[in-house]
Amino acid sequence: MALASSLAALSLATVADSSAVETKTVVFKPKTAKTAVPVPVLLFALQSTETPSNVLAKAAAVKEPRVAKEDLVVEFFKVSPKEVSIANLDKSLAGKIKIVLDSQIANADDELVLSLVTESGAAALKASTAVEYLKSTGIETVVVDFAAEAAALASGSSKKNSAKKDAKKDAALEDAKLIGITVDKAKDFSSWYSQVVTKGEMLDYYDVSGCYILRPNSYAVWETIQDWFNVHIKKMGVQNSYFPMFVSQRVLEKEKDHIEGFAPEVAWVTRAGNSELDEHIAIRPTSETVMYPYYSKWIRSHRDLPLKLNQWNSVVRWEFKHPQPFLRTREFLWQEGHTAHLTKEEAAKEVDEILDLYARIYEELLAVPVVKGKKTENEKFAGGDYTTTVEGFIAATGRGIQGATSHHLGTNFSKMFNISVENPDGADKPRVFAFQNSWGLSTRVIGVMVMTHSDNKGLVLPPRVAQTQAVVIPVGLTSKTTDEQRKAINDGAADIEARLKAVDVRAIGDYRDIYTPGWKFAEWELKGVPLRIEFGPKDLSSEQATVVRRDNGAKYTVKLAELETRIPEILEEMQKGLLEKARNDFNEHRIVVEDWKDFVPTLNSKNVIVSPWCGDSECEDDIKDSSATKDDGEEEEVDEKAPSMGAKSLCIPKEQPELKPGQKCVKCDKPAITYCMFGRSY
Amino acid sequence: MALASSLAALSLATVADSSAVETKTVVFKPKTAKTAVPVPVLLFALQSTETPSNVLAKAAAVKEPRVAKEDLVVEFFKVSPKEVSIANLDKSLAGKIKIVLDSQIANADDELVLSLVTESGAAALKASTAVEYLKSTGIETVVVDFAAEAAALASGSSKKNSAKKDAKKDAALEDAKLIGITVDKAKDFSSWYSQVVTKGEMLDYYDVSGCYILRPNSYAVWETIQDWFNVHIKKMGVQNSYFPMFVSQRVLEKEKDHIEGFAPEVAWVTRAGNSELDEHIAIRPTSETVMYPYYSKWIRSHRDLPLKLNQWNSVVRWEFKHPQPFLRTREFLWQEGHTAHLTKEEAAKEVDEILDLYARIYEELLAVPVVKGKKTENEKFAGGDYTTTVEGFIAATGRGIQGATSHHLGTNFSKMFNISVENPDGADKPRVFAFQNSWGLSTRVIGVMVMTHSDNKGLVLPPRVAQTQAVVIPVGLTSKTTDEQRKAINDGAADIEARLKAVDVRAIGDYRDIYTPGWKFAEWELKGVPLRIEFGPKDLSSEQATVVRRDNGAKYTVKLAELETRIPEILEEMQKGLLEKARNDFNEHRIVVEDWKDFVPTLNSKNVIVSPWCGDSECEDDIKDSSATKDDGEEEEVDEKAPSMGAKSLCIPKEQPELKPGQKCVKCDKPAITYCMFGRSY
Repeated sequence: MALASSLAALSLATVADSSAVETKTVVFKPKTAKTAVPVPVLLFALQSTETPSNVLAKAAAVKEPRVAKEDLVVEFFKVSPKEVSIANLDKSLAGKIKIVLDSQIANADDELVLSLVTESGAAALKASTAVEYLKSTGIETVVVDFAAEAAALASGSSKKNSAKKDAKKDAALEDAKLIGITVDKAKDFSSWYSQVVTKGEMLDYYDVSGCYILRPNSYAVWETIQDWFNVHIKKMGVQNSYFPMFVSQRVLEKEKDHIEGFAPEVAWVTRAGNSELDEHIAIRPTSETVMYPYYSKWIRSHRDLPLKLNQWNSVVRWEFKHPQPFLRTREFLWQEGHTAHLTKEEAAKEVDEILDLYARIYEELLAVPVVKGKKTENEKFAGGDYTTTVEGFIAATGRGIQGATSHHLGTNFSKMFNISVENPDGADKPRVFAFQNSWGLSTRVIGVMVMTHSDNKGLVLPPRVAQTQAVVIPVGLTSKTTDEQRKAINDGAADIEARLKAVDVRAIGDYRDIYTPGWKFAEWELKGVPLRIEFGPKDLSSEQATVVRRDNGAKYTVKLAELETRIPEILEEMQKGLLEKARNDFNEHRIVVEDWKDFVPTLNSKNVIVSPWCGDSECEDDIKDSSATKDDGEEEEVDEKAPSMGAKSLCIPKEQPELKPGQKCVKCDKPAITYCMFGRSY
Repeated sequence: MALASSLAALSLATVADSSAVETKTVVFKPKTAKTAVPVPVLLFALQSTETPSNVLAKAAAVKEPRVAKEDLVVEFFKVSPKEVSIANLDKSLAGKIKIVLDSQIANADDELVLSLVTESGAAALKASTAVEYLKSTGIETVVVDFAAEAAALASGSSKKNSAKKDAKKDAALEDAKLIGITVDKAKDFSSWYSQVVTKGEMLDYYDVSGCYILRPNSYAVWETIQDWFNVHIKKMGVQNSYFPMFVSQRVLEKEKDHIEGFAPEVAWVTRAGNSELDEHIAIRPTSETVMYPYYSKWIRSHRDLPLKLNQWNSVVRWEFKHPQPFLRTREFLWQEGHTAHLTKEEAAKEVDEILDLYARIYEELLAVPVVKGKKTENEKFAGGDYTTTVEGFIAATGRGIQGATSHHLGTNFSKMFNISVENPDGADKPRVFAFQNSWGLSTRVIGVMVMTHSDNKGLVLPPRVAQTQAVVIPVGLTSKTTDEQRKAINDGAADIEARLKAVDVRAIGDYRDIYTPGWKFAEWELKGVPLRIEFGPKDLSSEQATVVRRDNGAKYTVKLAELETRIPEILEEMQKGLLEKARNDFNEHRIVVEDWKDFVPTLNSKNVIVSPWCGDSECEDDIKDSSATKDDGEEEEVDEKAPSMGAKSLCIPKEQPELKPGQKCVKCDKPAITYCMFGRSY
């Protein structure tokens, strides 16, 4: 790992710490007279700190700072922009650059550990170590309290500075426990999400950038989805199979539109052991071109149709955008179904049936509401005929999120790969090209689920997909408790656990005596276990247990005699409750907008929008560009292509408001032909 | 694909054909006076043709032909030995080299399609096209009937040629149907195996060499194994998870002994889209080094132990040996379990428990008997403490085959990766390094199953893992059958199918009216369906069905009233029958040998051997070298490292014959310390 060793070379001790806070390092070039030598500004800040360029400009006393181009970065720092870190700073740069340092780092307490990530490596070190080092370089450094400065600038007067609250401090949770979540979902969503997935043991960051480890707490969700989906697709006649992860360049590039969409992200194997391969081999970004040459071979007669294969595998898309756990990862797990049919009608029917299954996975398993619809031409799958989609909504950020897609490919690929059969109407008629579909659902679903339900105490897992559905915890044991009573309570708790397991409730007991009940409550809340079952002296004497729901804290007193019926009931109530709450959120934030003047303000109030639309691709682009004001600015520097920049078309919803006669497009003057859902999105 | 385009450049029309027969192209250098220019001999033959070098020498009229070294091949053919094909031949080579052409190709009928495979590509073309082309080059070509010549040489007289049968023709099955297997398992195992797995639709060859497609008929076997194994390991407290497929060079190379074993086979990603990666990234050949840095992070206290994770994934080992479906493939599916324990005893117990599960997968699911044992130091997992194994036996070739391995890693990796906890006996005592295990079972199991049970009619699938357990076929319908009777029989068959499905027998009906029952019988036999249920006029009138077992052809008459009980019973009888038969084969061919003089002859009679052994690694090597006579020669040229060359130690069986006092090692003069199983192996 280049980064860690560079740091080591600077005698900066790196540490291993799962709670390390992400940082960003960005180089800016201020506006400079053409003849002058530019003085770049290096920003070093917490990832979660919003760092608007106007604040930066003011703090560094420069004009119009822009993210520096590669050549400038290489000139000053000897590495590409993606590799810049504080490890590239030394005394030779004193007088040549300026540093703008986030006050969150400069004034951090002793415990704060920073995570440094570059394209090729990652490392963690204490904030104090980093600050010490920056000082030692002798480079001019300005410490900036971005939240305060931004507020001051916004209010039009920097004099009001001291009256403004530090927004960042405000995001810190006051009652946060040491082991728990330390930031507020509503105020710093990105840090919150990162904490929830790591502290909830869903996932861990991995030392190859953009790749993550799926720990049992998340993989169990995936297994539940696999089991459910397998049952349903097998009923439809789909069979599972496995195709190689490798694809030759020639085959990969056979369908031009298709490859154009994937080419920049394809990972290439060029070497095995010490031997250079004569032909470079791609890792599948998806398997259309892997599979279809064999469909051509296997499908010889109309009796070989339909052919319906699915595979559960991982694919690789080497995106250079900012990665995000579950949502944007370089390797991800998914299923990909690929089917070939004799008629378009049969294929189209399957596209819808699969989309229904996807919607049911979201709604019935993950308790996440989705809107079914069709993608616009701009947004459809490259090389396909049309794409259907289920679209979700993240209320905390007001962004839409693509849930899963089911594509009808028409005969585009079957013509390329010659998947054809003799015409059933007679050999003299032209051969019939198969109508094909492909459809996929990935581990992204887990991210959507986490973002939707989880809260400031940690994960909230829907009972149907939770690896552990209930945790039994003995309570009320004090130093005065007699041994006899202690035994009775512990035995009673173990009995509850055993009885629940016997009726297939995924229960565990937490009988560790070195932790207090309160500590245990917090730990299991962090991990998202749906029900906590407390059993103490009062419960013992009243032959009952106290049950607490993870999502809303509702308490239930359950008679021990009714455990086997009540616990599954409460789990189902919670499952329904989660879906209802999320559905209300989505419904309240899906706003019909007919006038353009309302579009951006509605968008900026964290809504997605359903608007009458002309159906024109250029108008769609125009809507995107015209709505491209910042929503939170947070990802701006590190992810210039972030879809947050403008409102994309999310889908043309299946359920449509009725178009009024003469209704015009929300953006242009052409007549509307449909309602379309727009939004910022992931 | 370089090969296909080279052929195209020569105007050699390539074709797509699943039944293409594999060929081999090998360059030999005859013994030549040092001052003379060598005249290489290029052999072009069916893969399945045995081509002993003495026959080659005689035919080409050269002395001691040896496989040519790389420099010579490059000098004459401009490509590396792995890339040589007939596409490298042209007129410029006339007078400079000789061609030895297999008569099976020269005299092939018009329909024979040849598969040409080089390191980087594959193509298929008609034998006649190939022969025509060789002629056009003007290179001296000798056509050789290898089987006849070999027989002639063996009998000591080439004059007896005409009296000898053509061994290859002899391997052809006389009653082979067009769609069925055309070669005899006993006489040409390698071609038979290739036909069985492809025609049985278990697998298809893929255009990236060494990779194969797992079709539903084989993937279903894998799914059954996954379901069964998941249930059992979850009971042991193992959780499933998923770790990235990529690993950085630094991490991969952390454990030296370990990486030494894998380094030559590691596939490297060096490019994404058009960007060269700053740091090259390996695709996991196994995940010890992927996972253990995180074990170190997650395991902080003895309360975090044991940690037991498993993952189902694919790994890549870019072997340059001759690939073989299921057995030796560059990407393969497996599960890999990785656990960490506080004590060696607990770890060792788990190693055995897992090995028992592996043995049960073979014996209870796949009906394949195995011998449990321990690997010698020479054969153990690199970097581990000891390796336990289940070893199978392929009766048709007399070779052993490694089934699955369960390793105890000791504290070797935990010391490398610092997986340690505070001493439970007190913080003042030294930290305790975790005792680790890793264990894996791959899709190789499917190959072993196919090799064991299948026959000249095609696949034989054990009922418990068969995707389809019974096929119902209406029979006895002729042109004289009344419509009423036809309907009654078809309805009756459909009723049988439905009733069986209702009791979870995986049944299907074959009601296609364009095929005769005989054709259908052959097709379902080819695919290995355990039971055929015939339903015809006589069955209809007697309220019965006729049931035929795939493995031994046994016929049963089953009363319709007893369908739901009898069919599952017959399936179980077949399951047991398969295991018994295979176990008898293994027992009969596992021979105790105490004198070295009996060792090689016993080996050559297609046995594995259990011999008293001194335990010395050098003696083990000596046994391997001294037994390195050819068994069938078949793989010799294309796979010089084939384990068939000598008898490897397969395992030290858990169940041991008792050593006699003073018993000496079978090979050397040292005292024996154990019995060890030796054999040629896959």
